[in-house]
Amino acid sequence: MPGTLILLRHGQSDWNQKNLFTGWVDVRLTNQGRTEAARAGELMREAELLPDVLHTSLLSRAIQTAHLALESCDRLWIPVKRSWRLNERHYGALQGKDKAQTLAEFGEEQFQTWRRSFDTPPPPIDDDNEFSQVGDPRYADLEGHLPKTESLKLVIDRMLPYWRSDIQTDVLVGKTTLVVAHGNSLRGLVKHLEGLTDEEVVELNIPTGIPLVYDVNEDGTITGKGRYLDPAAAEAGAQAVAAQGKK
Amino acid sequence: MPGTLILLRHGQSDWNQKNLFTGWVDVRLTNQGRTEAARAGELMREAELLPDVLHTSLLSRAIQTAHLALESCDRLWIPVKRSWRLNERHYGALQGKDKAQTLAEFGEEQFQTWRRSFDTPPPPIDDDNEFSQVGDPRYADLEGHLPKTESLKLVIDRMLPYWRSDIQTDVLVGKTTLVVAHGNSLRGLVKHLEGLTDEEVVELNIPTGIPLVYDVNEDGTITGKGRYLDPAAAEAGAQAVAAQGKK
Repeated sequence: MPGTLILLRHGQSDWNQKNLFTGWVDVRLTNQGRTEAARAGELMREAELLPDVLHTSLLSRAIQTAHLALESCDRLWIPVKRSWRLNERHYGALQGKDKAQTLAEFGEEQFQTWRRSFDTPPPPIDDDNEFSQVGDPRYADLEGHLPKTESLKLVIDRMLPYWRSDIQTDVLVGKTTLVVAHGNSLRGLVKHLEGLTDEEVVELNIPTGIPLVYDVNEDGTITGKGRYLDPAAAEAGAQAVAAQGKK
Repeated sequence: MPGTLILLRHGQSDWNQKNLFTGWVDVRLTNQGRTEAARAGELMREAELLPDVLHTSLLSRAIQTAHLALESCDRLWIPVKRSWRLNERHYGALQGKDKAQTLAEFGEEQFQTWRRSFDTPPPPIDDDNEFSQVGDPRYADLEGHLPKTESLKLVIDRMLPYWRSDIQTDVLVGKTTLVVAHGNSLRGLVKHLEGLTDEEVVELNIPTGIPLVYDVNEDGTITGKGRYLDPAAAEAGAQAVAAQGKK
């Protein structure tokens, strides 16, 4: 009994709009982001791919996206689990900084390394930085293990255990499983599922608000590649994400 | 280590506004209901009573209320469990009927008996009634046990096992536990907590959108009575609920 996995990247947030590095800072969706989320639910309804179970990060913009998507496909009642392991990449000392200013200050090469290299994290954030998560009650269980910066590699290292323990478990019992998360946690999951190399994942751009569907086999492998429920919008969205790094 | 229990009745729904018997029919909040829900979150924030964990029914109006309340007190990330055992009373064949028309058709005594007697359920709903829940996927696990009508007594009988197995368990480990549910499932829980008689609970009216707080002891009993976070609004709201039956 193979299962279906649906990945959904949250829609536009306040800080996407302001072009700031966000990471673990808990910003909310913009009205555009809310519209994207509702549209994602309509796409699932139209495709008759209705989630049986939901997984989200601990960040409000993912939780809001999930709520609005489920509201528009009438599945608010499904069981939900949340984990910090699905959070966005921790952007370290870059959190709260303007992307264009950072590019101007540090130059194209350093900027792109921080933004897109596989295993080079930005400088760590100070505990007394206003955008540090030290003391945030939602991470109380993490205590001394709270990240202070992360590369994509480190995101994958902390995300995959949750994929194996919780998400994959739901998929393999035949549930249509929706994961609402972030650009980098989802890039990491797609890398794992599609067997992308460290170089290939650097070029991977996941658009916001378009459900990405995988058919998962009994052994946890996938059949074919992922398919977006609105391929034309996904292509345009992926190009927009790629262009962000080139401003 | 005693814990805190917060009960919250969902805000105005489409069918509250239209004065229809709702029960298990899955209607949504009105804009007024959404405003009430956000206000409930502000009340919890002002009282510094921030939930650690959430329990809801499987009905959208309760789930929407919980989301909006947690959004306004910045606790969207807390763990959540949902159960049909917290659903509103099943109103049987009355579901979808206009309350004023039902009152005119059946008379004051019959109307009040169906609406407020402790142990007299309305006539059962037919499986082919458009407002039956037969075939609704959210109740797939209930199979042959789906209620077709309920008295308040029957609501209490199916709600208390969940109180004991899940909600009370959270409270007793010291979590501030938020339960977002419905007029009758919450009346049943208050009856249990406050030790009300079958006659007393008939007179109990729980207002919408005002958090009702209990301090729970280690043995599961409560200290004192419940307190509303906005007592004046709660009093006005309870009178409005009582007046519904007198239209």
